[in-house]
Amino acid sequence: VTSPEGLCSLRWNAQSEAVEVIDQTLLPHSLRWCQLRSLESYCHAISAMQVRGAPLIGITAAFGLAQALARDPSTENLQAASAALLATRPTAVNLRWALAAVVTAVQDLEPASRAGAALAQALQLRARDISNCARMGEHGLDLLRALHRAGPLNIMTHCNAGWLATVEWGTALAPIYKAHAAGIPVHVWVSETRPRNQGMNLTAWELQRAAVPYTIVTDSGCGQLLRSGAIDCVLVGSDRTAANGDVCNKTGTYLKALAARANDIPFYVLLPEATIDWHCASGDDIPIEERDEREVLAVTGVDTTGLRREVMLAGSGARAHNPAFDITPAALVSALVTEHGSFEASPAGLQRLRSQISSSSPI
Amino acid sequence: VTSPEGLCSLRWNAQSEAVEVIDQTLLPHSLRWCQLRSLESYCHAISAMQVRGAPLIGITAAFGLAQALARDPSTENLQAASAALLATRPTAVNLRWALAAVVTAVQDLEPASRAGAALAQALQLRARDISNCARMGEHGLDLLRALHRAGPLNIMTHCNAGWLATVEWGTALAPIYKAHAAGIPVHVWVSETRPRNQGMNLTAWELQRAAVPYTIVTDSGCGQLLRSGAIDCVLVGSDRTAANGDVCNKTGTYLKALAARANDIPFYVLLPEATIDWHCASGDDIPIEERDEREVLAVTGVDTTGLRREVMLAGSGARAHNPAFDITPAALVSALVTEHGSFEASPAGLQRLRSQISSSSPI
Repeated sequence: VTSPEGLCSLRWNAQSEAVEVIDQTLLPHSLRWCQLRSLESYCHAISAMQVRGAPLIGITAAFGLAQALARDPSTENLQAASAALLATRPTAVNLRWALAAVVTAVQDLEPASRAGAALAQALQLRARDISNCARMGEHGLDLLRALHRAGPLNIMTHCNAGWLATVEWGTALAPIYKAHAAGIPVHVWVSETRPRNQGMNLTAWELQRAAVPYTIVTDSGCGQLLRSGAIDCVLVGSDRTAANGDVCNKTGTYLKALAARANDIPFYVLLPEATIDWHCASGDDIPIEERDEREVLAVTGVDTTGLRREVMLAGSGARAHNPAFDITPAALVSALVTEHGSFEASPAGLQRLRSQISSSSPI
Repeated sequence: VTSPEGLCSLRWNAQSEAVEVIDQTLLPHSLRWCQLRSLESYCHAISAMQVRGAPLIGITAAFGLAQALARDPSTENLQAASAALLATRPTAVNLRWALAAVVTAVQDLEPASRAGAALAQALQLRARDISNCARMGEHGLDLLRALHRAGPLNIMTHCNAGWLATVEWGTALAPIYKAHAAGIPVHVWVSETRPRNQGMNLTAWELQRAAVPYTIVTDSGCGQLLRSGAIDCVLVGSDRTAANGDVCNKTGTYLKALAARANDIPFYVLLPEATIDWHCASGDDIPIEERDEREVLAVTGVDTTGLRREVMLAGSGARAHNPAFDITPAALVSALVTEHGSFEASPAGLQRLRSQISSSSPI
């Protein structure tokens, strides 16, 4: 199983003993891989959003913890490194989940065995993410097949939930890649996703490389598109999902869900089980990260000479509010599509998912 | 009656025989007035959005027609100049309305009298816009007073519907200026309004000059704000309003209206009577201007040296869809606030408004 181009967003280089990730802050203007070794470089990569996307954040952190243990396998360092990585982003639950998986795998071992076991665990999380995304893609493809009539299927997405947000395939983009490969004509409406423009910078770049037809639209422009009958369905990812089916995802998701519902358009959320926070009874329990106002007030692009350049958009003295995520109530979600299949976004639907997981897991 | 700072967006300079307008494409980074004399300069000012906002577009066009007649008062030129000005922007009905007012005032006159009569008509439209906006402000202030409890009143707005969009006061911002002057504490949440950022560039600039507290938020971020209970009401303008109360306004208005309704927050549209198109039975009859994709794919700001600079945001080969407006169905509008008072956004409400106009007009 490989993603459309055999590319991935994160790889372990055993020779140099480093994780290699694409610096996503430089896309779409340049594709540069950077090597992560020190705990500081991992923390910076996550908090500065060189890597982003809930699944990829978790996997990156797992490798970061493994490499911190290679330097100092003590219990104190296990705790300190884990805490430092956990503090990089507050919203994505995969981060906590992946770190806990590594801690659980190593905490009862002799210090000398910890680094190796942690690396094995990180590699396993990476492999599992790839297969989970491929399975989400298949389940999502079933939904797309059911919607497909004559002509291209018009799919709207928000932010980036492609292979750049995971390791391969992606979450919301996985069914799109599967449909494209299966010969179902698709056209993707890419919402730019202010303030960091992950739709315009990352999703458009991914789709262009995969030769999937797409058009960028402003976040606001999605409303009229959904009203106009041009869209067959909306596919988005999730950064954290509550036990009642409420979805926390990139700011702007909620408005699309409202417009989809008002116009009877299916709104599907694709997420690995690891994104579900069973401790959050509802979306209102999920902390929403407030990021630097400068992300709104200024923007980086390339000038006519191809040089990266930041320009100030707002006037001097302007202040901004910059919440990174919003909450989409479960009632607006047509289905939650996971590696285990599709489920209703409701307490009952999530309980069914939970039963299916526990009956299938080798305990 | 003068707007908060005695400033206006358009003035007639009788000495130089030119209209002076603020070049709004340079705000908030520099305040530059430019003089319009030739028909070409008027057409360019409107189509390049040096002036924008439905009321201001109409008044600018009226002066443009008057100045075209000063050069050539023939019936052929009256028709040609009127057609050229009408073609600059397809959505705002005020443009058609203001041009028709001038044509009606001069077409039966001797050519020699036309230029003077046209200029008088343009000056009258300008004066009427100022008094209409002041009256809208008072009617809107009544609504704000009714909503005000302890603490600041939190008002969300979109795009720019302030004095930069009219001549003085504005439409949606007029009640805010009136409330601020009346000592009612207000805090304005300014939606940035991609792709041209009229919220961040123009509304924030206006409010800052008037010392009205405000915070900029991305268009997408408005959803969570409306969900969170932080907002008391939404005030927006309208570029064209259909006879059933459907509102065509800057792209992004519809999504705010959906979120306001979902969270029981009043959503008021402020518009002069001239914005109503009695020939449009519903919003679906209103043509929506599709603008250049470059407005989405690139953006202009100032660099660290204060120089204006355009940077490309999207990767090469990216394409965008750029509709300038969207339609908000009447059912989502709490009230239409006009210079004649507040009316229900419905065919019945608009009929009441129409009766009131015809009974009060000196026919």
